[in-house]
Amino acid sequence: MAPTALSERLYHSVTQDALRAYLAEFISTFFYVFAAIGSSMASRKLMPDVAANPSSLMIVAIANAFALSSTVYIATNVSGGHVNPAVTFAKAVCGHLSVVMALFYWFSQMLAAVMACLFLRVTTAGQHVPTYEIAQEMTGFGASLLEGVLTFALVYTVYAAGDPRRGPLAAIGPLAIGMMAGANVLATGPFSGGSMNPASAFGAAIVAGSFKNQAAYWVGPLFGAAVAGLVYDNVVFPVQGPDSISVRGVSEGIGV
Amino acid sequence: MAPTALSERLYHSVTQDALRAYLAEFISTFFYVFAAIGSSMASRKLMPDVAANPSSLMIVAIANAFALSSTVYIATNVSGGHVNPAVTFAKAVCGHLSVVMALFYWFSQMLAAVMACLFLRVTTAGQHVPTYEIAQEMTGFGASLLEGVLTFALVYTVYAAGDPRRGPLAAIGPLAIGMMAGANVLATGPFSGGSMNPASAFGAAIVAGSFKNQAAYWVGPLFGAAVAGLVYDNVVFPVQGPDSISVRGVSEGIGV
Amino acid sequence: MAPTALSERLYHSVTQDALRAYLAEFISTFFYVFAAIGSSMASRKLMPDVAANPSSLMIVAIANAFALSSTVYIATNVSGGHVNPAVTFAKAVCGHLSVVMALFYWFSQMLAAVMACLFLRVTTAGQHVPTYEIAQEMTGFGASLLEGVLTFALVYTVYAAGDPRRGPLAAIGPLAIGMMAGANVLATGPFSGGSMNPASAFGAAIVAGSFKNQAAYWVGPLFGAAVAGLVYDNVVFPVQGPDSISVRGVSEGIGV
Amino acid sequence: MAPTALSERLYHSVTQDALRAYLAEFISTFFYVFAAIGSSMASRKLMPDVAANPSSLMIVAIANAFALSSTVYIATNVSGGHVNPAVTFAKAVCGHLSVVMALFYWFSQMLAAVMACLFLRVTTAGQHVPTYEIAQEMTGFGASLLEGVLTFALVYTVYAAGDPRRGPLAAIGPLAIGMMAGANVLATGPFSGGSMNPASAFGAAIVAGSFKNQAAYWVGPLFGAAVAGLVYDNVVFPVQGPDSISVRGVSEGIGV
Repeated sequence: MAPTALSERLYHSVTQDALRAYLAEFISTFFYVFAAIGSSMASRKLMPDVAANPSSLMIVAIANAFALSSTVYIATNVSGGHVNPAVTFAKAVCGHLSVVMALFYWFSQMLAAVMACLFLRVTTAGQHVPTYEIAQEMTGFGASLLEGVLTFALVYTVYAAGDPRRGPLAAIGPLAIGMMAGANVLATGPFSGGSMNPASAFGAAIVAGSFKNQAAYWVGPLFGAAVAGLVYDNVVFPVQGPDSISVRGVSEGIGV
Repeated sequence: MAPTALSERLYHSVTQDALRAYLAEFISTFFYVFAAIGSSMASRKLMPDVAANPSSLMIVAIANAFALSSTVYIATNVSGGHVNPAVTFAKAVCGHLSVVMALFYWFSQMLAAVMACLFLRVTTAGQHVPTYEIAQEMTGFGASLLEGVLTFALVYTVYAAGDPRRGPLAAIGPLAIGMMAGANVLATGPFSGGSMNPASAFGAAIVAGSFKNQAAYWVGPLFGAAVAGLVYDNVVFPVQGPDSISVRGVSEGIGV
Repeated sequence: MAPTALSERLYHSVTQDALRAYLAEFISTFFYVFAAIGSSMASRKLMPDVAANPSSLMIVAIANAFALSSTVYIATNVSGGHVNPAVTFAKAVCGHLSVVMALFYWFSQMLAAVMACLFLRVTTAGQHVPTYEIAQEMTGFGASLLEGVLTFALVYTVYAAGDPRRGPLAAIGPLAIGMMAGANVLATGPFSGGSMNPASAFGAAIVAGSFKNQAAYWVGPLFGAAVAGLVYDNVVFPVQGPDSISVRGVSEGIGV
Repeated sequence: MAPTALSERLYHSVTQDALRAYLAEFISTFFYVFAAIGSSMASRKLMPDVAANPSSLMIVAIANAFALSSTVYIATNVSGGHVNPAVTFAKAVCGHLSVVMALFYWFSQMLAAVMACLFLRVTTAGQHVPTYEIAQEMTGFGASLLEGVLTFALVYTVYAAGDPRRGPLAAIGPLAIGMMAGANVLATGPFSGGSMNPASAFGAAIVAGSFKNQAAYWVGPLFGAAVAGLVYDNVVFPVQGPDSISVRGVSEGIGV
């Protein structure tokens, strides 16, 4: 990547294609958070003692899997289908997306998450918006570590889905991403909630007005995401030269 | 689109291909409504206090996801795989389908939905056919708004699945559409039912003989669908000229 | 199709490719029935009052969807992936498979279903093998009608998955078939069981030693399957001449 | 395959590509075992009397299906996506992978499984790690036989997914593999646990400190896997000569 002046980077971040990418991230993150948090609200409404019910874990896990698969699907052509600030962070750390654009992506994702939670609260006539919870016996550090490892898996899958060597498997990338998220929720729902997505944790916290343990849903996931991206780019599928960069993604354009 | 005389439009709507499209919509909508309403009847039969059971929410959501994926799949080659009057409405508003053909699509879909509910009632020896319900604390306007936003997501996914830029992802379009529907049901089942489909709401209402809140399942979804189509066509993937129209769909032929 | 002598047909039915097809049908039907009946046994073991539990309905439906998708997948290249005597019947009625070969297919499927149920009974130390049941308030005719309509949907999906116009959607044919089966089970499980497959009904009946209502699981499905095949071939995707026959399938070879 | 000297085989097993393959197997097996065992821990936490609850069976089955689909997906390009010592065993027996490389694969898979269970135990603050259990009324031999037959189905699906005749179905291979695993768990969860994977049984046993019935989860699966591979290669899709070997896989390179 040749060094580019800040002004040029700014210019790149407000082209029509870039604005479309922010809109696509907004729409996809809105509906992902809508399903992830909404499904938790729905199962709480159906049964007050949710924490003790395997059916509710299944509802939230399937909602995550289905919603992430479909929202990644609808955004892939336009914005690369991040739908998650941790994915955007990894792409920026690995140089597939400029820092300026990454900030615009984050803003769209955060705004969408907050709007989704607000919308859920308003249309359901003030139903309580739940935040991600850590099991009593666990520490915040343990939960952050767990979320970090989960996010590693998720972002690693995102990178594998964009690997040019994947051949015909390119067709089911969004499904693999959604299924990894669903499996992770099933394994960790009662322990740390299985967020893997700072935007969804942030949106729920803002609307619920409770930032307890919020750090755990940021530090771990961002760290895990960056490690996943760096491992994939440098070890699993190392880029050998400037030519292959253009193959891997549009460095200064829309993140793939 | 050059202006066409009404007679020509009528001619286009009764060609062999058009009649096949109506049949395909009838078959697909029949089986979608059959699964969506039938799964609700099945879980009510297994447990009388359905409204309070997360398992029943899961049953209806998975039935929606599986049935919509497969019924869109079987109709795509023939009719474009709408399986939903709201999708047909969006296509007509965006000019991908003539108004005359859209009306024939609607008629097929409505008839199929009514027949599916009747068939369920008859074969199950008079089991009660449930209609979509709005949570007590919610208003009809809130439910309509909720259904409108859900339908926006669904129709947006339908448009993304038909986007010529989607590359290898074309293969899993019907799965993404079904998964979006399933995620939406999981998030909103206990609040507005998660219909997103005026035909299914209409069929259940006719056979149950109860039109309470029916408007909520029409106004919101049709509005949300039209907005989704217009946003996709004009913002996310704007058509630049008459040439690209032929790329996007057969305007006067079978809706894609 | 030119008329072929019986001896030639017999010769075609014992070629290496044909024998491989019978083996593939045996393996796929074995594992489909294993999952369909085994999942019902598993949920009965976990909870004696299965008939009153939505979770059990979900278990059986997902087992059907997953097992049918994967068993159709593994057999498609070799035998066309029927995994169901009703599908074989439709293919024979439509002339895609000779009657002699269809009988060999049936024999493989029946044998596999009986073996699967026997194997389940033996390895689970004599656990009761359940048969498909009709709800008390329903008639045998109603159940047969219901199963016929379900099988129509399933076989129609099989035909759509093999339609040469399906383009990139060819990739997910087995998933669409499995999902249609799963949706149908969710809608009709407590009413007729949602068999859609004479082999699975036959295998369970043989091992359980109870042929009550067996006819309902044969008449309806075979009739529905034949109608689906004929409708698809003659109305939805009519064959225009002898040339297109070779496009649709290997009439005298392995059924597609 | 021309005979190769041991030194050459050793050389092949420590090339950069081979080391990447071991890493890919480690990562994929880690996350598969994490979800398979973690989901069981999650449902036990939500409900102490897991063994008697169909919802828990569903949680474990879906976790298996989703996790295996996605972990096979992310490893396919790099290591062939075995994620299971039984698959590696079959590949080695059939000559698609040298014995030396197979041992490295096994080591990576075992290490990953132990690490995943340890990690689950540590982050969940010492939650009990469950091992696979055999129903009281069953014998160890019966369970081993059952697991062997399940693994046959799984490995047969892996081979079908790599069959060069599969055409467009190549795209959904990992989904078919995961679905077969999920269906098998639904059918046998309460009887033998539905492991089909010696690594996952080994990891849980090491961390739980209980090797009761461990042999059943090794003998059956390895035997079933080898039979599946040999049947597929010699009967279902026989290799006719040295040319076709290069089509089937990189015999001395990374197993496909």
